[in-house]
Amino acid sequence: MKVEFIFVGTELLLGNIVNTNAFYLSNVCSSLGFVCYNQSVVGDNRERILETIEMSAKRSDIIILNGGLGPTEDDMTKECVCEYLNIKMNMDEDTKKAIEAYFEKKNMPLCDSNYKQALKPEGSMLLKNNNGTAPGFIIEKDGKIFILLPGPPIELENMTKDYVIPYLKTKSDGVINSVTVKMCGVCESEVENRLKDMIDRQTNPTIATYCKEGEVHVRVTAKAEDEKSANKLLRPIVKEIKSRFGVNVYSTDDEATLESSVVDLLVANNLTVTTVESCTGGLLAGRLINVPGVSEVFKEGRITYSNKSKRKTLGIKKRIIAEHTAVSAEVAELMVKGASAFNKADVIVSVTGLAGPSSDSTNIPVGRVYIGCGVKGNVKVEEYNFAGNREKVRANAVTSALFMMRRCILEYLSESVNG
Amino acid sequence: MKVEFIFVGTELLLGNIVNTNAFYLSNVCSSLGFVCYNQSVVGDNRERILETIEMSAKRSDIIILNGGLGPTEDDMTKECVCEYLNIKMNMDEDTKKAIEAYFEKKNMPLCDSNYKQALKPEGSMLLKNNNGTAPGFIIEKDGKIFILLPGPPIELENMTKDYVIPYLKTKSDGVINSVTVKMCGVCESEVENRLKDMIDRQTNPTIATYCKEGEVHVRVTAKAEDEKSANKLLRPIVKEIKSRFGVNVYSTDDEATLESSVVDLLVANNLTVTTVESCTGGLLAGRLINVPGVSEVFKEGRITYSNKSKRKTLGIKKRIIAEHTAVSAEVAELMVKGASAFNKADVIVSVTGLAGPSSDSTNIPVGRVYIGCGVKGNVKVEEYNFAGNREKVRANAVTSALFMMRRCILEYLSESVNG
Repeated sequence: MKVEFIFVGTELLLGNIVNTNAFYLSNVCSSLGFVCYNQSVVGDNRERILETIEMSAKRSDIIILNGGLGPTEDDMTKECVCEYLNIKMNMDEDTKKAIEAYFEKKNMPLCDSNYKQALKPEGSMLLKNNNGTAPGFIIEKDGKIFILLPGPPIELENMTKDYVIPYLKTKSDGVINSVTVKMCGVCESEVENRLKDMIDRQTNPTIATYCKEGEVHVRVTAKAEDEKSANKLLRPIVKEIKSRFGVNVYSTDDEATLESSVVDLLVANNLTVTTVESCTGGLLAGRLINVPGVSEVFKEGRITYSNKSKRKTLGIKKRIIAEHTAVSAEVAELMVKGASAFNKADVIVSVTGLAGPSSDSTNIPVGRVYIGCGVKGNVKVEEYNFAGNREKVRANAVTSALFMMRRCILEYLSESVNG
Repeated sequence: MKVEFIFVGTELLLGNIVNTNAFYLSNVCSSLGFVCYNQSVVGDNRERILETIEMSAKRSDIIILNGGLGPTEDDMTKECVCEYLNIKMNMDEDTKKAIEAYFEKKNMPLCDSNYKQALKPEGSMLLKNNNGTAPGFIIEKDGKIFILLPGPPIELENMTKDYVIPYLKTKSDGVINSVTVKMCGVCESEVENRLKDMIDRQTNPTIATYCKEGEVHVRVTAKAEDEKSANKLLRPIVKEIKSRFGVNVYSTDDEATLESSVVDLLVANNLTVTTVESCTGGLLAGRLINVPGVSEVFKEGRITYSNKSKRKTLGIKKRIIAEHTAVSAEVAELMVKGASAFNKADVIVSVTGLAGPSSDSTNIPVGRVYIGCGVKGNVKVEEYNFAGNREKVRANAVTSALFMMRRCILEYLSESVNG
């Protein structure tokens, strides 16, 4: 079956936002085995939306429309699809109530226009939106399928995961299964290089690599008659990739994130953790705390941004900072050791670095970061040199710290077993 | 003049890469005052590329094709445009020499296919590529303009800056200028409602609203003969919007973020700041620290995630937490007061809430967050109820905390002036 996308929104045409939804949806559909030949972007204009729908319906079987489901007059995707298909809309009482509850909870006034989102095309399947007020819809008519999805990425992605993927799977002939091998500490070109022989001889399963904020994901996709046969095709390939990259691989679980893999490891082994951050300023703790259940292992963290706070809170001597500067392996190590004075956590991580935008009087290059990690008192420090702007350096530092935590904990665990 | 984009590349359809070029080119064209109604993405397929070119040439004056200028058989953008326009190609000797020099410098073997890139459509203008081997081309024929640009962002962006923008300026009538009014604490539908009269009578300038992670941006765009006249059109509209939304507006500066507006306010008034975070776990400090120059006002922050840490670090009595729970206005207030014991900052912000995914034994609903903000000892607490998953609740809490900080600081400043 041929699928095609229509992205609706003047903000895309004006260059106000990057169309990451195109990337996300293309990925989803190609991994499910659907062929996609065309994508269109069109503004919030009735005539042009209708034109685009007509063109897409001529050449594709499944038309996914993204955006234009909001409450304002500019939002008209649903109205245009119904006009094209000659379908009426009726008020959906459940959605109406959900919208009222949403606004009541937020303590915000509800306008008449908000009720527009509760209108449901006749004969359509309604897709609940747990992260916003715009439901999605699937409409099957005259052998064509129209899928209408909201524009905000978090709403789109959750709705796609919960409803669209399971639905599309029923439309695909055969079964497509995929496993994503998630790794850190290697760059994409190196991964491609080390998998070249496998990529060159791929037919089924196929192998594709993706770059993701300091991580590389290798997706292995198999097509077969049933789930069991697909998994049988996947297993040896995934095993081979895992064995080639060893400790770089942190998970093959679709739901896992780098931080959840670290928190899982801590919880499973009854290890508590604390963070002392300088340049990352709380982002490392912030990512750890995004994992539900982290409260079992994370009690407190500190952001020691100034030199004074490194002295006062962590007891690092003025002389040491003067001699080595705050961005040094020595200070990263002393941050870990100093933290143990106020927090008896089993794992202590420190980050200190120069995120930019410009270098300071110390001549340390922008992007230089030191990460310290102590497990039960055994402290290691690593030096990193990241490229990019302040935001990118800080994000990379957080990812590297999580990956280093994982490695240090695994090392400690294997030593305790062997020792 | 109407401009439209065709992005050529199967990698876009498969979801292997994000189409950041669409964002870049849309921005360039809209800021030059060109109207863009459509964008298409098409794979590396002769028939479908020709179809898309034909469709685009029917409805637009300037067609910008991006990608498909490489040396391989898959690259056929130039060939397709020439086929559509019935134009021959000839070897361009300068480009041929440049390609030979490029490969010699890199010490790489040159294949016959590489010479394909030196073929120049008859009557076209060649755009030199200083970052790769594929030149770009501008072809004017039968009242239409075709601009062919390479796919790699660095090549595209430099070529656009050097040749395409100067060329397009000669084709643009007038200047387009825009101002974005950035606000917080209101939802998009409310903003539209309160601007409805202005939006309804808009022609020039135009007014458009955008939702952005807890913020609403209103972009006002004016078209005029020159910069000065455009700004004259913008000024009264921007002023009116600002007066309607008062404290909700945090900036009209393109470069400003909510956090930079808070940090600027702190720096300008010589106010230091600290954070004590529970559910946001460092993300608030992390966003503040993303602003260069924050070190002048932010020295240290704490993440007091567990009840024990709220007791130990902030001195909040066990009895208080037992009585009110950790997610309460009382605890938010005591977090601010407790923080002053170890940090004499002028502004102290606390966040405590239940981010989910599930409620705990206290029956507090997921999404309930209390934010405390003290300025020079005067502490306020606000209750919020956010919708969405753990990540969204936390992100919303951070945005609301920043916005509350801004309001409290402004209030303090106006009181000091009046008092």
